[in-house]
Amino acid sequence: MKVKFYFLVSFFVAITNLSAQNKDSIIIRNFFNEAFTNGKCYAQLDHLCNKIGNRISGSKNAAKAVEFAYELLKKEGFDSVWLQPVMVPHWVRGEKEIGYFVSNKKKTTVHICALGNSVATAKEGIQAKVVEVKNFDELKKLGKEKVEGNIVFFSRPFPDAIINGAYGITVDQRGQGPVEAAKLGAIGVVVRSMTHAHDNFPHTGATGYKDSVTKIPGCAISTIDADILSQTLKDNPSTEFYFKQNCVMLPDVLSYNVVAEIKGSEKPDEIILVGGHLDSWDVGTGAHDDGAGTVQSMEALRLFKATGIKPKRTLRCVLFMNEENGLKGGLKYAELAELNKEKHVAAIETDAGGFMPREIGIAVSEEKLLGLQPWQKLLAPYGIQTINIHGGGADIGPLKKQGVVMIGYHPDGQKYFDYHHTDADTFDKVNKRELQFGAVTLSGLMWLISEYGL
Amino acid sequence: MKVKFYFLVSFFVAITNLSAQNKDSIIIRNFFNEAFTNGKCYAQLDHLCNKIGNRISGSKNAAKAVEFAYELLKKEGFDSVWLQPVMVPHWVRGEKEIGYFVSNKKKTTVHICALGNSVATAKEGIQAKVVEVKNFDELKKLGKEKVEGNIVFFSRPFPDAIINGAYGITVDQRGQGPVEAAKLGAIGVVVRSMTHAHDNFPHTGATGYKDSVTKIPGCAISTIDADILSQTLKDNPSTEFYFKQNCVMLPDVLSYNVVAEIKGSEKPDEIILVGGHLDSWDVGTGAHDDGAGTVQSMEALRLFKATGIKPKRTLRCVLFMNEENGLKGGLKYAELAELNKEKHVAAIETDAGGFMPREIGIAVSEEKLLGLQPWQKLLAPYGIQTINIHGGGADIGPLKKQGVVMIGYHPDGQKYFDYHHTDADTFDKVNKRELQFGAVTLSGLMWLISEYGL
Repeated sequence: MKVKFYFLVSFFVAITNLSAQNKDSIIIRNFFNEAFTNGKCYAQLDHLCNKIGNRISGSKNAAKAVEFAYELLKKEGFDSVWLQPVMVPHWVRGEKEIGYFVSNKKKTTVHICALGNSVATAKEGIQAKVVEVKNFDELKKLGKEKVEGNIVFFSRPFPDAIINGAYGITVDQRGQGPVEAAKLGAIGVVVRSMTHAHDNFPHTGATGYKDSVTKIPGCAISTIDADILSQTLKDNPSTEFYFKQNCVMLPDVLSYNVVAEIKGSEKPDEIILVGGHLDSWDVGTGAHDDGAGTVQSMEALRLFKATGIKPKRTLRCVLFMNEENGLKGGLKYAELAELNKEKHVAAIETDAGGFMPREIGIAVSEEKLLGLQPWQKLLAPYGIQTINIHGGGADIGPLKKQGVVMIGYHPDGQKYFDYHHTDADTFDKVNKRELQFGAVTLSGLMWLISEYGL
Repeated sequence: MKVKFYFLVSFFVAITNLSAQNKDSIIIRNFFNEAFTNGKCYAQLDHLCNKIGNRISGSKNAAKAVEFAYELLKKEGFDSVWLQPVMVPHWVRGEKEIGYFVSNKKKTTVHICALGNSVATAKEGIQAKVVEVKNFDELKKLGKEKVEGNIVFFSRPFPDAIINGAYGITVDQRGQGPVEAAKLGAIGVVVRSMTHAHDNFPHTGATGYKDSVTKIPGCAISTIDADILSQTLKDNPSTEFYFKQNCVMLPDVLSYNVVAEIKGSEKPDEIILVGGHLDSWDVGTGAHDDGAGTVQSMEALRLFKATGIKPKRTLRCVLFMNEENGLKGGLKYAELAELNKEKHVAAIETDAGGFMPREIGIAVSEEKLLGLQPWQKLLAPYGIQTINIHGGGADIGPLKKQGVVMIGYHPDGQKYFDYHHTDADTFDKVNKRELQFGAVTLSGLMWLISEYGL
């Protein structure tokens, strides 16, 4: 009977809201027209990627990115623009990593890069036999006896026959691999890159350490080389792996979240946040991750101003610092929001690439979600196929305990992990129109939340 | 009240078809699993693009593509595989075109290419003043007096603020430009490339002539150079344009449509066709247009065989020859279908690139369309957001008068015209997973039509 109830509610909503929907539809179409004729986000992304470059927390480029975004938002003439100081980690990769394996005296060079936050190897590098495992259970079964003194190779691939979500079910190898391997006495870790792509780009990304466990170095290996290494180990289990990396964690650095705001006309105390992260990894130029989300968030606010739309509630664009290797910006933002007794009604995160819009996740109950389905119809022309309850995001996450509705903007994700955390994540991989569709979608969604609440 | 009726029908369909939908959902998921674990279409596209290359009708490469597809389909062991002989045009571009403009004695080279089917210029090229117009009305207003002896520059751009359909409302410049200009005595035509992209790739594509009108040469100019030329003409209306091209239309050549079939178990006389075109333009390697559709059509049939699914109706994969500059394959196919009294219940064309699935157009009445909406739900996991009535396609078009339901498979189209008919249409622009999602969608759709009819 639930199905029947849903249909009746849909029907009722459809009949009563026709004229409101028409108005909303026109407003969102105006956002589209502005974005596609005078849009600024693509040129801003060009600047961020090609004039500034990659911008890991604590780097000079990260500071330049803060300055760029702050001045740009100031120029747009929003009601307020400010910086939120936050201390962030300052991890430096150092010289280009070297990796190879040796089988029957033959040396084969492989494409590797240090995992983010990893410690360095010994200066001369480290070399040892390789223990290949697909997961932590396999590792534990091998035990200290077989692991100690060796390098552990975590080789569980992205499963192909999964529509979305391969990252979530494989990334533990990267995140906890070094800790789990070190517990059993391993001296280093090699992780198969987190991607469906079969190429020679190694994928960096954060790994974590525990104070109670020896910190051992970890690197990522490209998927092509991971396959070659696996095959070689099958042929010759005595194969040894060598890698050398010089990364170092320097003292924390002062950095900033960048915030801009349009004050609400009727409920100025109710804040709707849209945000992405300004930092990136230190490879590629952080175009999809998360240059796209950064410029879309700025554009989402600009579209209101440029089309003369005054929101009832306050709209806030937040460009977070240090999403990639610490989340210090997201934590600081939530801390200040609580301290200042700010009331966020919704927080939208855009950190999944500049691809065509596909889904919006709004973390509400199934019943509430039903009432939001007319929004899908309004956003469908711009690519939104589904509004579901899978809302959330790393940077907005710390706001959750303040009762803020978590919202994730999810563009089509099939290519995201082809570029994610690699040298391939560059401006030329972002399509201007697809990026703009994302900005329009975010503006449209903010308009609807501002007008009708959640 | 129509709205209410629709909801009730939806509701009824939802309740009664739950178990059938569950079965369909499992079958389509099996297609997905097969395509994503043992899929062949990506490797086939690699071969078509990188081992064979571009394959304009009448060329050696087109013949190689026929042979490749025929042998491949034979090897798959379908119930029947055959060739349909058809005479096709044999247009040859000749030497690389040369184009420049001269303003105040300064020569600026531009990126051009001959329009498909265009005649050559004089051997030494042609040079004349430029008449820029946005459309045929403007051209006619100028009249013979201002056009005669000059080169007409059709410069109407793809409008940015349109979601889809920019091609349809600008391509007349390319298709009829030379005829319309020649009627007023022009000696040549330059057409702004049909694309949203702002780059230096000129886009070829068919132009047409009329026997009663002088055939004058036409070329396409890249969008960046089109902008430069427009600006130069504003600054100096005496600017002259020069171009030289050596293309020639040779005598027709024997070629083939390639056809493969799985016989239906219950209604073998009812044919469901899926097809793309095997030929391409003679630039790039025809990856999205229409290597993608070619390999997806073959894969769509293979997925039935590999998963052991026996369709009630007959499934036929047709790889048409000469879609680009003559449609002789499509015409021949329809002619033979009529001659042989074949009954096609549906024809699906995939000729819009190897991008993520987005829409399916099925040319039925609005009422019938309503009954098909549960299919959208079944195909939604693979990307289908909408099933609408906008079905059709060039190659299947000639079947229409036999009462065949026209169906167009429409992947997300935002990037298609970035590559269409240019040197940029290469294998690396196609994402393996996105291509596979298309094949799964086509198989799923064929399954549903085979099982339930239209």
